[in-house]
Amino acid sequence: MERTATAHWKGDLRSGNGTMRLGSGAWEGPFSFKTRFESAPGSQPEELLGAAHAGCFSMALSAGLTKAGKRVTSIDTKAVVILEDLVITRIDLSTRGVVAGVTAAEFQAAAEDARANCIVSKALAAVPITLQATLAAG
Amino acid sequence: MERTATAHWKGDLRSGNGTMRLGSGAWEGPFSFKTRFESAPGSQPEELLGAAHAGCFSMALSAGLTKAGKRVTSIDTKAVVILEDLVITRIDLSTRGVVAGVTAAEFQAAAEDARANCIVSKALAAVPITLQATLAAG
Repeated sequence: MERTATAHWKGDLRSGNGTMRLGSGAWEGPFSFKTRFESAPGSQPEELLGAAHAGCFSMALSAGLTKAGKRVTSIDTKAVVILEDLVITRIDLSTRGVVAGVTAAEFQAAAEDARANCIVSKALAAVPITLQATLAAG
Repeated sequence: MERTATAHWKGDLRSGNGTMRLGSGAWEGPFSFKTRFESAPGSQPEELLGAAHAGCFSMALSAGLTKAGKRVTSIDTKAVVILEDLVITRIDLSTRGVVAGVTAAEFQAAAEDARANCIVSKALAAVPITLQATLAAG
């Protein structure tokens, strides 16, 4: 299975600007040096990476819990991508699950499994990934 | 610098569905088992990863060429993310640059440097990344 995306960049690094586009057509949006490395409002590759990771992790956690016979109401995950000196040095995942019939320990174990093994986590194996997992009432 | 994104998932893997959201607010969109692993129209984490990679690579290539004194008109990059048996086995980048004052060999070298060293490539060091680079008339 192949998934595609494109980017267009115009001009030099500092004064140029670009767009990123999802192959499905679901989104296309602008980015620039200022939106990426300064505080200008707008998108940048790091938050796309974070969204991919949060989405993949959430789906994998639901899959793992469902496979173990638990009933998943919802999984909410935040990914914080930390960029230092032009290196992504860490990704912090925090997740909150509303799941029936699961103990806190079982939920932690399932979340840890998704952190270590979801598709995007494996692709990002070069980056340390931390996890905080909270089980809410099912 | 921290960049955030979130995901919400509701229900089990097969019949559930979710949303992914960029921290900047630039985009929020739905995904599901069918949009990710079947052919239903819609987004999935892999194309977000691809857009992050295409965007980062394009910006890095412009930066490298600019630093070498070249005048970049545009860089257009496509990322193809290949998913096999729940593993991202490869990312194929193809790029086309319109750049003044650069030889084909210089352009290839700059593109190869961006492929190897851009921020997202480094985070994805666990995944083989191929590159096809084409220099168009400046």
